[in-house]
Amino acid sequence: MKLNQFARLAPDAATQVRELNAIGFATDPTLGLAELAQTNFAKLFPEAYTATTTHQQWANIATDATHTLADLLTPALTRIPRDQFYTAALQLLGFEPITDFPLAAPLRFMTATKLPFVAADIETPADFLAALYLLLTTRTKHLVNYLDALATRGFFKDFQGAAPRYLFFNGKAQNVFDARRVHREVVWIESDLDTDHDGQRDLLEATIFRPAETDAGLKMPVLFTANPYFHGTNDVDWITHEPSTEVAVKTHSHTREEVTYHAPAAPDLPPRPVTGTATEAEQYADENGIYALNDYFLGRGFVTVYSAGVGTRGSDGVRSTGGPSETASAVAVIEWLTGARRAFTNRTDGIAIKAWWSNGKVAMTGKSYLGTLAIAAATSGVKGLKTVIAESAISSWYDYYRENGLVVAPGGFQGEDADVLAVDTYSRQKTTGDFLRMKPTWDKALAAITADQDRVTGDYTAWWDARNYRNHLANITCDVVVTHGLNDWNVKPKNVIALWNGLRDLPIQKKMVLHQGQHVYVNNVLSLDFTDMMNLWLSYELLNVANDAPAVLPNVTVQDNVEPQTWHTYTDFASADAQHPQQVLNLATAFTADRASFADNATRTFHAHHETSDSYELEIVKPNSLYATDRLWLDLPVFDHAVVLEGIPTVHLRLWIDQPTAILSVRLVDVGQAARFGAVAKTLDPTGYPLGYDYKTTSILEFAPAAPTDSKLITFGHANVQNQHNAYENVPVVPGVPFTLDFALQPTHLTLPADRHLALIIHGADMAQTHRPTAITNYHLDLANSTLTLPMRQD
Amino acid sequence: MKLNQFARLAPDAATQVRELNAIGFATDPTLGLAELAQTNFAKLFPEAYTATTTHQQWANIATDATHTLADLLTPALTRIPRDQFYTAALQLLGFEPITDFPLAAPLRFMTATKLPFVAADIETPADFLAALYLLLTTRTKHLVNYLDALATRGFFKDFQGAAPRYLFFNGKAQNVFDARRVHREVVWIESDLDTDHDGQRDLLEATIFRPAETDAGLKMPVLFTANPYFHGTNDVDWITHEPSTEVAVKTHSHTREEVTYHAPAAPDLPPRPVTGTATEAEQYADENGIYALNDYFLGRGFVTVYSAGVGTRGSDGVRSTGGPSETASAVAVIEWLTGARRAFTNRTDGIAIKAWWSNGKVAMTGKSYLGTLAIAAATSGVKGLKTVIAESAISSWYDYYRENGLVVAPGGFQGEDADVLAVDTYSRQKTTGDFLRMKPTWDKALAAITADQDRVTGDYTAWWDARNYRNHLANITCDVVVTHGLNDWNVKPKNVIALWNGLRDLPIQKKMVLHQGQHVYVNNVLSLDFTDMMNLWLSYELLNVANDAPAVLPNVTVQDNVEPQTWHTYTDFASADAQHPQQVLNLATAFTADRASFADNATRTFHAHHETSDSYELEIVKPNSLYATDRLWLDLPVFDHAVVLEGIPTVHLRLWIDQPTAILSVRLVDVGQAARFGAVAKTLDPTGYPLGYDYKTTSILEFAPAAPTDSKLITFGHANVQNQHNAYENVPVVPGVPFTLDFALQPTHLTLPADRHLALIIHGADMAQTHRPTAITNYHLDLANSTLTLPMRQD
Repeated sequence: MKLNQFARLAPDAATQVRELNAIGFATDPTLGLAELAQTNFAKLFPEAYTATTTHQQWANIATDATHTLADLLTPALTRIPRDQFYTAALQLLGFEPITDFPLAAPLRFMTATKLPFVAADIETPADFLAALYLLLTTRTKHLVNYLDALATRGFFKDFQGAAPRYLFFNGKAQNVFDARRVHREVVWIESDLDTDHDGQRDLLEATIFRPAETDAGLKMPVLFTANPYFHGTNDVDWITHEPSTEVAVKTHSHTREEVTYHAPAAPDLPPRPVTGTATEAEQYADENGIYALNDYFLGRGFVTVYSAGVGTRGSDGVRSTGGPSETASAVAVIEWLTGARRAFTNRTDGIAIKAWWSNGKVAMTGKSYLGTLAIAAATSGVKGLKTVIAESAISSWYDYYRENGLVVAPGGFQGEDADVLAVDTYSRQKTTGDFLRMKPTWDKALAAITADQDRVTGDYTAWWDARNYRNHLANITCDVVVTHGLNDWNVKPKNVIALWNGLRDLPIQKKMVLHQGQHVYVNNVLSLDFTDMMNLWLSYELLNVANDAPAVLPNVTVQDNVEPQTWHTYTDFASADAQHPQQVLNLATAFTADRASFADNATRTFHAHHETSDSYELEIVKPNSLYATDRLWLDLPVFDHAVVLEGIPTVHLRLWIDQPTAILSVRLVDVGQAARFGAVAKTLDPTGYPLGYDYKTTSILEFAPAAPTDSKLITFGHANVQNQHNAYENVPVVPGVPFTLDFALQPTHLTLPADRHLALIIHGADMAQTHRPTAITNYHLDLANSTLTLPMRQD
Repeated sequence: MKLNQFARLAPDAATQVRELNAIGFATDPTLGLAELAQTNFAKLFPEAYTATTTHQQWANIATDATHTLADLLTPALTRIPRDQFYTAALQLLGFEPITDFPLAAPLRFMTATKLPFVAADIETPADFLAALYLLLTTRTKHLVNYLDALATRGFFKDFQGAAPRYLFFNGKAQNVFDARRVHREVVWIESDLDTDHDGQRDLLEATIFRPAETDAGLKMPVLFTANPYFHGTNDVDWITHEPSTEVAVKTHSHTREEVTYHAPAAPDLPPRPVTGTATEAEQYADENGIYALNDYFLGRGFVTVYSAGVGTRGSDGVRSTGGPSETASAVAVIEWLTGARRAFTNRTDGIAIKAWWSNGKVAMTGKSYLGTLAIAAATSGVKGLKTVIAESAISSWYDYYRENGLVVAPGGFQGEDADVLAVDTYSRQKTTGDFLRMKPTWDKALAAITADQDRVTGDYTAWWDARNYRNHLANITCDVVVTHGLNDWNVKPKNVIALWNGLRDLPIQKKMVLHQGQHVYVNNVLSLDFTDMMNLWLSYELLNVANDAPAVLPNVTVQDNVEPQTWHTYTDFASADAQHPQQVLNLATAFTADRASFADNATRTFHAHHETSDSYELEIVKPNSLYATDRLWLDLPVFDHAVVLEGIPTVHLRLWIDQPTAILSVRLVDVGQAARFGAVAKTLDPTGYPLGYDYKTTSILEFAPAAPTDSKLITFGHANVQNQHNAYENVPVVPGVPFTLDFALQPTHLTLPADRHLALIIHGADMAQTHRPTAITNYHLDLANSTLTLPMRQD
């Protein structure tokens, strides 16, 4: 176990003492070591209400094979040997002697586990306070740090008096509010939209979880999650597409101007009249689709707000799968939270309600579609949005459903497209009365999405351009945190890296975490203190805590793919400097291959073997594969040392085919028997991570090596051979006539150990993600005139 | 989906009206239909605080393709067509038109789903109130019934005034208390035991979750779970046994008297002096190992108590794996809850604390070891224990770890034994200071368990007799509910059926639920209203509600193994009457087999194919199996109609072997390709089942057919051929000399469709559960003198 920690501050001794004092520890050095230790060790057992039950607890904590804390903590105490202190401390942190660590050698275990410890035995009150401060900020076996663990056991339960207040320790907001006493409220925010064309501004439902301490006048910042799934999802089997059995020959090449989205003028609709005001909501909110990280912050004095946007249950309008109306929906909520927009207590009576409890500072959170809308909202430059924490987010929907002029499904969802997701999230369907009234409007809007997404050509169009948030990065004024899985083939890594590259030169703070998982959150991954990092970040961004978070947190944190539980930190990702040389490898001379041609009959192979998308993805990258004749396999000899790839590999391919069009797919594979990270993180404890005192829990996970395999996909790319310049211009392909295609694979960061090698697979259709053509296409590569360019990291 | 319901009462109209009125519905018929409907439909949306938001909700509920509740509920209302009422009602119950049911035909869907409805259109206030009452007691899509669902949405949130009180509806306690406002307390109960031989009475820690409403003087009953896992478990890899590679030739036959346990005189130890009294605890409890069913009842006015017993963290003493000291531990807690025993607020100061909030009535709950201790406590006849709800419980530990003179592992845990479980649950290990002080005592106690369990002979001894609760069934005075999986090969069904048979003639109430799962709870299985059944039961047993629960609830409820979501009810299980004829089948004439001999070389086959216990259990029952030569396979021709087996199949086998001892295993198999229930229930919704208002949730499950297989185990049995009379007398076996063995298979209830047939497998060692002998043994069956006796059900 390695408990990496990036969010711990190391303030000077005076600050430490002041902070210890502020949370109730005795700090007066004149008390002497014995009394300081007794007084303060008593506070570490918040469940014990009396001296006797405290003493019982001390007697349970061994300091060596024959003594306990109860033996140590006597008036005779003059010195605490460091080994004894940490033997006890490890038990306080949740580790069991004998099972987890050798009783006699706590420091060896702590070093291996990456836990910090003081330099010498504890001889003075100052020594003790320094050790105590360090211990309180040390991570426990149960993910959270020790002071947070104490808080979830009641350490702060009597903290609040008549005038509620924040408490910060080690630069982070502490769990001093009562997450159980929360107002749940629903309001309707009036937008500028009219997506259902009824001549009325669309009302947007928002759900608020507001700590009761706001009632006493305390203003709180807001964690806002724009979650289209918040009110449930619908069955989409009926609208999920069968992959087409042919690849269309394109007849209309687009110009850049043709594919540039120009927003229509906003409808100028009258606002609803205000007939009265209220400070309390008229409707209680049900709970659904909560993000555990948000819940974690409720007890730390953050209001959490969820809104699902146009076309969801309780709101007006129709879905647009990431269109401008969904950005505007999220922005409208932020505007209400900062006092710049109106909301009502119900849909009809005109009773206005303000977010009177808001301090006007908002952060957006969430993964996937949720994080996507956070990025979208950030590109509006809306005032009050101080930061977004966007996880596994889409930055351009074309990079989710299309690639280089091809229809490409998100991994795991063959046949999904923008219209499918629109149906999935049109939760107005769940309120049948409303659904039936809206049916003609929605049927029409949905039909337009199905037409506009254009599954025939797969080209980039103005419709997709409207869903490319990277067009508007220059508008971003808030600080940005992104996380993404390096093995996320659902929202592929291009989304985050293209975003990162676009943010690089903006005058904002930006942080990126890249992990070895797929399409998942990282807040509950044990080896990373992500929650604490975000506490430091949000305390800085939303509560003005001068904790130097931008400097303390690494710019880029990347999980190693070979060493479990190991996270590297960098100042940037694949920036264009000397440390990131490009290695250009000729496919004929650098690689070995036994042929240069193949006939793509993968669709037949796929059906003949009753393969699924999941099985296909494993099979296509095996050295000995069912698809061996449907692909070229090119081996690159082993490097003579471990190498690190970082950035965007590209291919330059010269080839001819015997058809007027085709799909071209390329996979870069890590080859050699090894136990690599598996597809799914391991659940270490389904309820081990406490989110507050006497409150919810969530799971603790770890990315962990799975059973050994012969190979694993590193990255891949797909292209329509008619899209030789970009995703909107088409070039006719003449059977038998060679042409050249350049395209990028998904970005990667990978350590390749010296005993493994790379292979490049060139094949046709991708059964899991592209159309599945039934015609056999012959591919002939001119390997001598083709290259793979690998971006390397050399520091 | 079939939502079976056994706990709904159908009181007369006057009672219905009275109960509706008591929970706040308007019932005065002079109001007229329109006003009654408007007033009462408004109450069905507890989230809506105002008339406007209520109206918004009505407008969301369709009554047909073009109308909603908002259209219906006008002053002009004179009649509610039944179809419209139930189209709306189904939406209230959580079903979605279009997706779940056709908008125009609600009754057809309700019939298929087993939901009740009224007989005609609603024309009068009385009609409306009858329909409303029925609706409130109808099950929802989310497991709980509709009134319970409303309660979890806040229906009763303002129910309690200054003087807290219970509320009963339809015979069941309602969720009118606040499950979030609970005192968590720890006390130490002084037992009569001294299992660690320190001359002091063992103190037993108990954890109490007490609704705050008790502070106002309300006395509540207690749900007590004796849970040895409550404070965590330990690593047991180091003590788990390797299955022996030889079966011992036994040298010492026991007499009945030799294997009869005689309890030693209880130590007569002085009680601790009382130095003071308290009404509040000195220690807050942490939470661990909570049973969701208990949590469900917190808001209904039941205190829940957990105690882990001797040898667990916080308690004195050592574990005994089901020994008399563990029974006494559970009984001591009940005695404290009923005022008959002393407890203290800490371990040393002598401050006594009473369960002053207890109404003196206790039910025990829990599964597996937890249910086992409920059965154990029941056999003490302790006063105040009104009922036990014992799920998947052991009734004799010999039937858990041994069988007919053989060491037999619980399914899934090859190599486990009583000593392994003792280590597993010795959670004093988790408090290292305490553990180290106790180490010599515990090492000695553990060594004694390892010796006494006797893995050499596998015989029944006085040590096992001390762990056979069926010896004391005559002492039981409380009513008993048991549940068990018909496919539970961990705690095998013999445990529950032998218990049931022993209870049959006792003057107590008893109820049994047999399901198609393995070793699992049934409270969250969607097709059964188990939680409601237990609410009826506990309201009757602990709160004196005259709901006629013993007559309303079926005596025996059995899940069908062919039709999903189908539960049969019976007055008894396999009672000895004419409806349960025994069918005696000669193995030579009734069955077909191609030979009568086999050589058991299964251990070699097992290792050669890198099999696991899990894969073995599937493989051994396949018609074409890796173990084909290690077994006899006897086919019974198809019956010409579906038949139902119910009870205990037995075999009478005449055979000789070529060794002085051997393991004999017999499996009865259901043969024929079919999609049968899988090993694991399907999770329909991981958080779909709400346990209270703004409170925890748990999962909703359903036992569901898995992928088709050619065969499935129905039941099995094992015997040591030296145990020809019983589990303690040994008979020498002479190689080559025939002998006769009679033994029972595990009890079963099974419907065999007309197109499937039975097969009997006779084999040697069972790789998953018995020793794994390396010597090859030859078995020669005298089929003409061997029989299988099948118990049938014919009603």
